[in-house]
Amino acid sequence: MVLINENYLKLTESYLFSDIKKKVTAYQEQHPEARIISLGIGDVTRPIVPAIIEAMHKAVDEMGHAETFRGYGPEQGYRFLQDRIIEHDYRSRGVELDADEIFVGDGAKSDLGNIGDILSVKNRVAVTDPVYPVYVDTNVMAGRAGELAGDGEHWSQIVYLPCTAENNFVPALPTERPDIIYLCYPNNPTGTALSKEELQKWVDYALENESLILFDAAYEAFIHDENIPHSIYEMKGAKQVAIEFRSFSKTAGFTGLRCGYTVVPKELKLYNAAGEKVGVNRLWNRRQTTKFNGTSYIVQRAAEAAYSQLGTQQIKESIEYYMRNARLLKESLQRIGLQIFGGDNAPYIWVKTPNGLSSWKFFDRLLHECHIVGTPGVGFGPSGEGYFRLTAFGRYEDTVEAISRIQEWKL
Amino acid sequence: MVLINENYLKLTESYLFSDIKKKVTAYQEQHPEARIISLGIGDVTRPIVPAIIEAMHKAVDEMGHAETFRGYGPEQGYRFLQDRIIEHDYRSRGVELDADEIFVGDGAKSDLGNIGDILSVKNRVAVTDPVYPVYVDTNVMAGRAGELAGDGEHWSQIVYLPCTAENNFVPALPTERPDIIYLCYPNNPTGTALSKEELQKWVDYALENESLILFDAAYEAFIHDENIPHSIYEMKGAKQVAIEFRSFSKTAGFTGLRCGYTVVPKELKLYNAAGEKVGVNRLWNRRQTTKFNGTSYIVQRAAEAAYSQLGTQQIKESIEYYMRNARLLKESLQRIGLQIFGGDNAPYIWVKTPNGLSSWKFFDRLLHECHIVGTPGVGFGPSGEGYFRLTAFGRYEDTVEAISRIQEWKL
Repeated sequence: MVLINENYLKLTESYLFSDIKKKVTAYQEQHPEARIISLGIGDVTRPIVPAIIEAMHKAVDEMGHAETFRGYGPEQGYRFLQDRIIEHDYRSRGVELDADEIFVGDGAKSDLGNIGDILSVKNRVAVTDPVYPVYVDTNVMAGRAGELAGDGEHWSQIVYLPCTAENNFVPALPTERPDIIYLCYPNNPTGTALSKEELQKWVDYALENESLILFDAAYEAFIHDENIPHSIYEMKGAKQVAIEFRSFSKTAGFTGLRCGYTVVPKELKLYNAAGEKVGVNRLWNRRQTTKFNGTSYIVQRAAEAAYSQLGTQQIKESIEYYMRNARLLKESLQRIGLQIFGGDNAPYIWVKTPNGLSSWKFFDRLLHECHIVGTPGVGFGPSGEGYFRLTAFGRYEDTVEAISRIQEWKL
Repeated sequence: MVLINENYLKLTESYLFSDIKKKVTAYQEQHPEARIISLGIGDVTRPIVPAIIEAMHKAVDEMGHAETFRGYGPEQGYRFLQDRIIEHDYRSRGVELDADEIFVGDGAKSDLGNIGDILSVKNRVAVTDPVYPVYVDTNVMAGRAGELAGDGEHWSQIVYLPCTAENNFVPALPTERPDIIYLCYPNNPTGTALSKEELQKWVDYALENESLILFDAAYEAFIHDENIPHSIYEMKGAKQVAIEFRSFSKTAGFTGLRCGYTVVPKELKLYNAAGEKVGVNRLWNRRQTTKFNGTSYIVQRAAEAAYSQLGTQQIKESIEYYMRNARLLKESLQRIGLQIFGGDNAPYIWVKTPNGLSSWKFFDRLLHECHIVGTPGVGFGPSGEGYFRLTAFGRYEDTVEAISRIQEWKL
């Protein structure tokens, strides 16, 4: 009798975004005339910038000639890309890293999902709440989440760190010590950020309590304010306690190209069962060399071009395009009296639903009455109830149209 | 105290191919004049064919314009590719599959490594011996392998199915029932194949014993003989017991582009702890949607083009190029009295080392005396001792030169 991984059966059958899709499809079928605008899923809409397109054409041509063809690359990524990453994303901010601390992969989702491979299932996990569902679901799969409570929202073994308007979306340090803490800043879904002082507190907590921080920095390119850290390694001592996940998806529009990277500092040591320290870098290296064969050469050349002078400039324009949407959404919705968070250093707007509407009720009304799709906050965790996420990734014209519909809306 | 996954510490520090690389580098440093020919690692050398290059240029251009830009695709792969796969790889051989049974990924190594996610760690695993190290290592990581025996070669919980000249490289059915059986045919590393009758025996065994077959068909494009199955689903009942892994790496030279796919039939059911049947397709779907974000759009268009009329024809020429190397190697080495296996339906030649030389001794002498790099058979498992793998993936000129060196060699 071949047994499945029993933990998978604990997961609820459906996934937030597929639930939304079903509702939208059903509504569109009943109302074929409705022009539905999606400010829901966090996918980019701007095309890949010319400097990157050019680099990919060049890489494609290389693959077509025996002299320049590339077969298997290093599982950890090509040195040409690792060096660019170190120079532009870290050295420029006073952080020194070695090439073998950078693991290029096919996106942050894969690495965030797979990082659990090298960690014991006995570790206790903490997540901010609301949170990117992948952190919780992958831990349910691994058996670290315990059982789902009667409320259908809390897992017995997960420590939840609520982030709401009441604490200005700055999670309080846990009262119960977790082994592993997921932090995503700038934050998805709330669009809020942590200042350097606030993030330093978390690093200090991890140092003192020997916790591991899994730091998701997928939205760092949207940071505008000086005092928001781009990398957790800008914080003192962070190399001893943190793994950082980065992505080209939102930065350079790579959601369809697939590239990200993970930083595992050699200073980071965890424990074996005998209580001896073990370097994590070589464990992740073993995981990647055994279960992964590197990211497409063409895509790595694309990522390299994102760091060129021209590439950087062109990407900046895309980011500014989205952040104009964010500003517009934020200001317009505030003007009609909605309470709005985020949107300054992240492409997400976190709306407090008015009149005590539930997240899903607000979703339904926005869809039915304005033909606009967003994401119910409760889909990201229990503390997301009563909130709603809008993204700045839409087309400018659609964003403007959406705002005008909401402004005329009789809520 | 954050605990690591203790199983990782059971793995030996080094990986076969990195050991080889070190030896080769050291020799080259001491003998800079030596022109070393590698017939070692199984990487392709022919460039990507023109039909695929053209398709990638087109896809790159699409990504550069807002109207044709593609962001997140389906985690399971685009329908245009799934449909081509079904039509060309299955329907043409009398096998019917639905699109949602095909999961496009970034290569067979990832999927073969990750498939364990959805299976209980309590399952007993069987591998043919010698074998692709990834099957064993990923099960060590998951905790299914038990402990390494004193010989440093056998894991206590793994059932080994020896494949040697004595049984003509056809593994005997296990005497001890395994839950999960890895089969790779045409085989890496031995280059041998199973006939339809032989593979049907394995399917029948799995049906009778309720075992799961993980069938790695990465080398199916090299099949020449009529009676060798291209897919395990050509066998009666296989959909109830087998998951099949395919790759474009060796077929179309995608080792640097990264694409493969995994077939999980909806008929395949395994058990939960309560002894109830659970469909495996939805478990793998949940794994992939949660921990993976799809393969690069550009690469999926490349894979699609591999099935076009022109693409098929051009790829066929590459395959014939490699198989000419295989034939040459096989015939020439047989002529000088070496005992040779494989090479008819696979790009690998499996050499019985002469004079009772150990695999590594043969490796050293071939490197030092002929400046040729191959792979010691024992690196693939204990039954590989006394054998040696050569690949047909080299350049034709290098293969000819290597043969001439071996012919002049005083063994």
